[in-house]
Amino acid sequence: MASMQNAALRLREDCFGRVGPAGLSGGWRRRTCVKMKADVNMRTKKQGIQVALREKREAEANPEYLLGGFAEERFVYRQRFVIRSYEIGADKTATMETLMNLLQETALNHVSSAGVAGNGFGATREMSIRKLIWVVTRIHVQVDHYSSWGDVVEIDTWVDAAGKNGMRRDWIIRDYDTHTIITRATRETRRLSKIPDEVRKEVQPFYLNRAAIATHNSDSHKIEKLTDQTAHRIRNGLAPRWSDMDANQHVNNVKYIGWLLESVPVNVLEDYNMTRMTLEYRRECRQSNVLESLTSIKVNEEEEADSQVLECTHLLRMEADQAEIVRARSVWQFKQHHRDI
Amino acid sequence: MASMQNAALRLREDCFGRVGPAGLSGGWRRRTCVKMKADVNMRTKKQGIQVALREKREAEANPEYLLGGFAEERFVYRQRFVIRSYEIGADKTATMETLMNLLQETALNHVSSAGVAGNGFGATREMSIRKLIWVVTRIHVQVDHYSSWGDVVEIDTWVDAAGKNGMRRDWIIRDYDTHTIITRATRETRRLSKIPDEVRKEVQPFYLNRAAIATHNSDSHKIEKLTDQTAHRIRNGLAPRWSDMDANQHVNNVKYIGWLLESVPVNVLEDYNMTRMTLEYRRECRQSNVLESLTSIKVNEEEEADSQVLECTHLLRMEADQAEIVRARSVWQFKQHHRDI
Repeated sequence: MASMQNAALRLREDCFGRVGPAGLSGGWRRRTCVKMKADVNMRTKKQGIQVALREKREAEANPEYLLGGFAEERFVYRQRFVIRSYEIGADKTATMETLMNLLQETALNHVSSAGVAGNGFGATREMSIRKLIWVVTRIHVQVDHYSSWGDVVEIDTWVDAAGKNGMRRDWIIRDYDTHTIITRATRETRRLSKIPDEVRKEVQPFYLNRAAIATHNSDSHKIEKLTDQTAHRIRNGLAPRWSDMDANQHVNNVKYIGWLLESVPVNVLEDYNMTRMTLEYRRECRQSNVLESLTSIKVNEEEEADSQVLECTHLLRMEADQAEIVRARSVWQFKQHHRDI
Repeated sequence: MASMQNAALRLREDCFGRVGPAGLSGGWRRRTCVKMKADVNMRTKKQGIQVALREKREAEANPEYLLGGFAEERFVYRQRFVIRSYEIGADKTATMETLMNLLQETALNHVSSAGVAGNGFGATREMSIRKLIWVVTRIHVQVDHYSSWGDVVEIDTWVDAAGKNGMRRDWIIRDYDTHTIITRATRETRRLSKIPDEVRKEVQPFYLNRAAIATHNSDSHKIEKLTDQTAHRIRNGLAPRWSDMDANQHVNNVKYIGWLLESVPVNVLEDYNMTRMTLEYRRECRQSNVLESLTSIKVNEEEEADSQVLECTHLLRMEADQAEIVRARSVWQFKQHHRDI
């Protein structure tokens, strides 16, 4: 399948599944170093007054407390974030792009803290030696509550094997105040060729057999390919900006979400919350590509009388040859407070 | 002047000069509350073991250490940030947009922590009562060094009067490791009408007569208005996306930078560092507006033999009626490592 081979070429991945530019080195090493110090600060209070005082002094002298650390031995990486003023959207809550950015950040920090990072912005050492990359094929996010500016969220992330040559990364996001899980996400990555034993040995010690989203709640069914005939709305002439590019002159894949939403009617964007999103990555795009965004909408009346749910199918494709970049599905829930007004 | 009156209507401002959507309340109050707790953690070690231990426990239980606090009595607000993976651009360093976002975030947090915030995303209480807003007229940023992913920066910000009816906000950004000042910025805001005494009383206690950028180093001279004849490059058809909007359906003013850069040649973006930028805000724009970006470039050979400096003039205007949105000037320095290769 040509399209899958193309897919293999496009998305650079960290060893645990994060897409990013290759070639970062200085910042990476430095971050790893800072992270290891951070682990020291994750110890429990049981270690006594001396340790507590020393750590207090270290915390004053160093900024490790801005970073994350391991929560369950080496299996779960945990980091807290404050939602910043510029990360909220028109409805004053964190956007889906913000969530995806934070998920990517924790994934990268996890790899970095695990000490297996190679000299790329993602690959492990053994992968770097072999010039291997991972390919993100699919990500699925379930949002129960969008945070507001100033809210603190705590993100847990871990990895597991997915089949013989794949890897799965899961996340949960908790509201720090209420301890409620507000978002769950899972992402699959794979290589078309067999994972070399050396790479497997590097990453296997971190595998945790736990699912953020139970299989029956996940969205694993195929996303249909939209066409001019099946789409309800098409927005064309979408041009990536210089500021959308990553260090490889490719579009940062979180930016796709913004373009996908360009073909969603404004009243949906305003009156509904996106509660689910699944993205299937097909092909990378560059700044010179002009894109088209397609959306179709289906109304699902749920059993509960007062909830109205929309299901959208999306496609982002090249305007020139209609080559697919990303297929997506999203589920939207009518905002309750809009009904109350 | 009609254009200045328009200007007064467009940019909502916090009491210390930050542009933002009006109407945030819950998150705002909560943040203020969390900030006050954060101040407790800013005490010095002199207060003894008991305090240190209690604070250590608090820091474990609460995420205040993610936020900032006052550094010099109530005059300087200080906050640390880690540059995140998605905040770096094609050259692997933090972008000008990222810097502007962080400056805005500290400005907002300053107002919030000062306890004078009204019920808007910016105005003071007395301003909210009177439905008054501030207008950002000009911002000037000087960047000596762009941070990389994982770098920690420490931002100081404070405000001062600027003439009779204006306010100035200054910032310095330090690299946390080297303690070097890497960025300086200053911004002017003003109201067209007189500042009421009640508002003056609210904000005056925070005034600090200190300049981040010495007057002779600042950029206060007029930015010429580019035309079709004087511009070297024009990029038209720039359409704001839904995700560029703030809570008032206006374009977030940091996004202007991305569009201004769209008319800068790619070889400049790739081979030069932007070391200075001045923005003069003229008019707000909405998602339905289609924009044009104009740039002219002048080469300045500096006295040092091996440095090449470019000065650009920019204009962002409406495509429909050519109404000015923002004028800008930027200075670019050839990247040394490009020359070394």
